[in-house]
Amino acid sequence: MDLNDRQHKIIQIVREKAPITGEQIAEQLSVTRATLRPDLAILTMSGFLEARPRVGYFYTGQTSGTILSEEVRKLKVGEFLSSPVVIEESASAYKAVCEMFVEDVGSLFVVDNSGLLAGVLSRKDLLRTAIGSQDMNQVPVSVIMSRMPNIAYCKHDDTVVDVALLLITKEIDAVPVVRKKGNGFEVIGRMTKTNITRAFVSLANVGESEKGDSE
Amino acid sequence: MDLNDRQHKIIQIVREKAPITGEQIAEQLSVTRATLRPDLAILTMSGFLEARPRVGYFYTGQTSGTILSEEVRKLKVGEFLSSPVVIEESASAYKAVCEMFVEDVGSLFVVDNSGLLAGVLSRKDLLRTAIGSQDMNQVPVSVIMSRMPNIAYCKHDDTVVDVALLLITKEIDAVPVVRKKGNGFEVIGRMTKTNITRAFVSLANVGESEKGDSE
Repeated sequence: MDLNDRQHKIIQIVREKAPITGEQIAEQLSVTRATLRPDLAILTMSGFLEARPRVGYFYTGQTSGTILSEEVRKLKVGEFLSSPVVIEESASAYKAVCEMFVEDVGSLFVVDNSGLLAGVLSRKDLLRTAIGSQDMNQVPVSVIMSRMPNIAYCKHDDTVVDVALLLITKEIDAVPVVRKKGNGFEVIGRMTKTNITRAFVSLANVGESEKGDSE
Repeated sequence: MDLNDRQHKIIQIVREKAPITGEQIAEQLSVTRATLRPDLAILTMSGFLEARPRVGYFYTGQTSGTILSEEVRKLKVGEFLSSPVVIEESASAYKAVCEMFVEDVGSLFVVDNSGLLAGVLSRKDLLRTAIGSQDMNQVPVSVIMSRMPNIAYCKHDDTVVDVALLLITKEIDAVPVVRKKGNGFEVIGRMTKTNITRAFVSLANVGESEKGDSE
């Protein structure tokens, strides 16, 4: 949202002198209270200022940036996750590569024999193994995977932003979406940089999905 | 930005009857023109309605979604690209894998002997070769890469959204950022799903960078 010069000046005044009444702001700007009314209404309704009856205006600390950021932070993992592709700990690295190509994913989640998350296997792990001297048919995935508890994961209700930060800071391409089960985690989805990319695109297109209430 | 009920009603009326004057809108809502003034000011300044003097109000077609989407569409490749990692066509697949691990990237851009973009090599291409029967030291990257003109690329001034869409629709992880040079393209950067993820995170944090003008 683009504010005009006077609106920027009002924010500046309120930042410095809050609480301050509309009358006092008008005086500082040498305009009438009536002139300011639409500006103050805009600044209040768009979240820059807060008006408290009989006290005056306060600065909320929001900027157009933080208002946009709030919209972004509303996006949850549940809206963007993909189905997980899992493989058993005892499967061979060769089988894992085939699975990765068949399912066209960049990461596999490894489960133990209770079906709980045991590790994560990336294309990079497999490539490292493939150029090594070991026989891909003889190496079980449990030997080359990243292993619990050293793997990052997320929950269905986490924000997409938190997952994006996790992927960047841990320098990984995907995390499993998990749900507590017994002493471990059940894998219920996957969040990858592809899902983040889709979330990014969705921000640029929300206008379209707003036409219907179904989305 | 959260609009109130009356503001939503006003948008609805203008959508149906534009051009329509403030007086006529007030009449429809059984309120005075003065009551509506702040609402109309907000809707105009935030871009939902357009006011043409002596004609009336028009609906711009914008929703809070499209206003957010405009912010997202302002992000350009130039702000988010990473340095490209290039390799020569004649290099071996084995050398490419090493390069990928040393530089910690998921894609290499292959250049011909004039330094122009000839192809793109992904981790997936290398993994496919690695589990095949060929000797990685004997296969040149030119044999296993995706080759011009069948590769997607972007320019420095493209929007991040367009690149994100390209990565999703082509089901690839990275595109080279190129600049025209002679009969081909010089590689000046790379845009990957990691860069899109960073752009996404930046949207959630723009508030911070707005504090200073330097960013």
